[in-house]
Amino acid sequence: MTDLLLNNVRLPDGEVADVLISRGRIERIGPGLGAPAGVAREAGDGALLLPGLVEGHTHLDKTTWDSPWYVNQVGPALTDRINNERAWRAASGHDAAAHSRALALAFLREGTTRIRSHVDIDTEAGLRHLEGVHRTREALAGLVEIQTVAFPQSGLLVRPGTAALLDQALAQGADVLGGLDPCAIDRDPAQSLDLLFGLADKHGKPIDIHLHEPGELGAFSLDLILDRVQALGMRGRVVVSHAFCLGGVDAKRLDGLLQRLAALDVALLTTAPPSRPVPPLRACREAGVTLFGGNDGIRDTWTPYGSPDMLARAMMIGLRNDLRRDDEIGWVFDCVTTAAARACGFADYGLAPGARADLVLVAASGVAEAVAQRAPRRLVISGGTRVAREGRLLGKLAEPAAPGASAERPA
Amino acid sequence: MTDLLLNNVRLPDGEVADVLISRGRIERIGPGLGAPAGVAREAGDGALLLPGLVEGHTHLDKTTWDSPWYVNQVGPALTDRINNERAWRAASGHDAAAHSRALALAFLREGTTRIRSHVDIDTEAGLRHLEGVHRTREALAGLVEIQTVAFPQSGLLVRPGTAALLDQALAQGADVLGGLDPCAIDRDPAQSLDLLFGLADKHGKPIDIHLHEPGELGAFSLDLILDRVQALGMRGRVVVSHAFCLGGVDAKRLDGLLQRLAALDVALLTTAPPSRPVPPLRACREAGVTLFGGNDGIRDTWTPYGSPDMLARAMMIGLRNDLRRDDEIGWVFDCVTTAAARACGFADYGLAPGARADLVLVAASGVAEAVAQRAPRRLVISGGTRVAREGRLLGKLAEPAAPGASAERPA
Repeated sequence: MTDLLLNNVRLPDGEVADVLISRGRIERIGPGLGAPAGVAREAGDGALLLPGLVEGHTHLDKTTWDSPWYVNQVGPALTDRINNERAWRAASGHDAAAHSRALALAFLREGTTRIRSHVDIDTEAGLRHLEGVHRTREALAGLVEIQTVAFPQSGLLVRPGTAALLDQALAQGADVLGGLDPCAIDRDPAQSLDLLFGLADKHGKPIDIHLHEPGELGAFSLDLILDRVQALGMRGRVVVSHAFCLGGVDAKRLDGLLQRLAALDVALLTTAPPSRPVPPLRACREAGVTLFGGNDGIRDTWTPYGSPDMLARAMMIGLRNDLRRDDEIGWVFDCVTTAAARACGFADYGLAPGARADLVLVAASGVAEAVAQRAPRRLVISGGTRVAREGRLLGKLAEPAAPGASAERPA
Repeated sequence: MTDLLLNNVRLPDGEVADVLISRGRIERIGPGLGAPAGVAREAGDGALLLPGLVEGHTHLDKTTWDSPWYVNQVGPALTDRINNERAWRAASGHDAAAHSRALALAFLREGTTRIRSHVDIDTEAGLRHLEGVHRTREALAGLVEIQTVAFPQSGLLVRPGTAALLDQALAQGADVLGGLDPCAIDRDPAQSLDLLFGLADKHGKPIDIHLHEPGELGAFSLDLILDRVQALGMRGRVVVSHAFCLGGVDAKRLDGLLQRLAALDVALLTTAPPSRPVPPLRACREAGVTLFGGNDGIRDTWTPYGSPDMLARAMMIGLRNDLRRDDEIGWVFDCVTTAAARACGFADYGLAPGARADLVLVAASGVAEAVAQRAPRRLVISGGTRVAREGRLLGKLAEPAAPGASAERPA
């Protein structure tokens, strides 16, 4: 790891500065910095410097990235998609290690250095997908920090045996316990949530629950979740993903839920889907609720859409919330940087001395342009190392994975 | 104009074929075509061949494309945006000719060969913006076909003198008469629409009305519009742009309006904004209503977002309508190709012998991948001429506009 002096970059606040990186961390930021002899130099040419981007919610284990096109003929219901995917992965020999590695590297190329990935745990695949993503986590250690969420995609109570698998997943190093629609999927919300929170409590792990349930049904489940956060003292350790219900209740009910979320420091994850109600960003900010961003699945059997670009996701959050002013676009940028790092608990984050030197240089005059126009990435630095330039990975990262990189890769 | 044989391309239906282009038109499409000696050849390498893309609704005169970033500090109301823009353009010397040319060439680079552009007509700027866009239309004749819509952005009845300017605009070669919210802006819908339809009738020109009015208010205006289409026999010659109201009325009211739209062959334009209700694509198709796509403004004082890429807009229509299956994505592709050409009246369109040879080769296995992943454009052909390759304009098009290209360009 070489020390590096990055000259003449524009910071998000508009100041022009140099950045001295030493032993993988930011040592100093300021104008006119010198560097000891022998330190490498990189000319910033006045480009905009951003902290490494953060993916707050994706599914690395599901993607077909780097594979032939998957022709989608799936039915419209949530259960159609869940069942189709489980059957397809079993039949196709889809390898979570190889695909997650390809997608994580594509994220890195676009400037994302921290990823929270949900990973399916079910009674058919067991821990196979988790083991695959963990192989990628190890292969990319020091380059992309990957958090895994043990996620009961096919349901928890409704599929006996799943709880024991989640228990095992957490013991094997999954970072977070995932959950899913306690009413709509598990059909017994109180018991489902008791089981989930009990597991998290046993392992001392945080929780991240997918809550797709709409309107008052979702609001009911959300209240049940918050009751348990409060009872178990899990303040600041729970995320509710999607929370479409917050876009589908009246103003008074929304206000009450936001107040509880803020008091318990429960963060919300949004992908800002154009076709669903979403938690309103402006109201969340006003109430002091942390809202952060993620892509959800990228080019998988659920959806043909998506790209591993967190500036594109920030743009979508801005469009979904009709935020057009430069200052408002700063809010959505926060969703894919500082707010996401805080909600997921990624340490040593930011553009400040002492933080890990995860940096992105983009061709833009400021944050609003970077987000609204998905500005090209000129240089990506991870942990002090230059890893991608002008949209291409550098050095060994640019090579295809060795055939032996995953024992499960189909022949 | 050289004749050209395009070898080994994949058609949208999956067939592999060659395309022979002669005198700017498609002469033959089929497998194993030969070509007379001296005809140039282009290897398609099995890439996907699409017809030239169609932009059904943009505002070439408003863009700040190819300029320093515009810092948006505009208030949230429609009138805030209208007034801010009028004042800013007057103060900044914004030149519609130079900016529209830059944006139209960016469209061409991404495979769009036909554009319908609304152009502001108001009592402060008069016909200045229209004259600018008409200069671009002439400069790019044979490369990008530009239709102009004389658009009373600041209102018609509410700004006396506007009707006379629209009359003059149509006499000077504007192709279509534009309109705007007869209730919300003009405050007197019957008189406003009578004036508008009277003007169109006098000049024998089609109409394209911006209708932002929500819910039942917009539905009321829409009925008034349809009454006049019927009375004046303007079947097939009227477009309603946006029509947010169709996403905000109940199923029965929607059904009735769609039946009238279909009977009168009035087409709908959607930009599929993620933050507004929109006409539902599935229901429109089922009712036989033509729905087509456009970007609206791109990087202007209204919005910092947008790019001149019709595949990206098709993707947004797919996301907004939650269309994920490959066959459904074919519907949104239709919105930015065949349906748009039909609704706008662009002649000689399509992938068929006799049509103008406007063609795009993209790196994708099929239409669904091209749309969902905004596939890179490998080659763009306009009127039989190769104009862009791998995202770059070719030959003289790649050069910046000559300083004398627009007399109004600010120093």
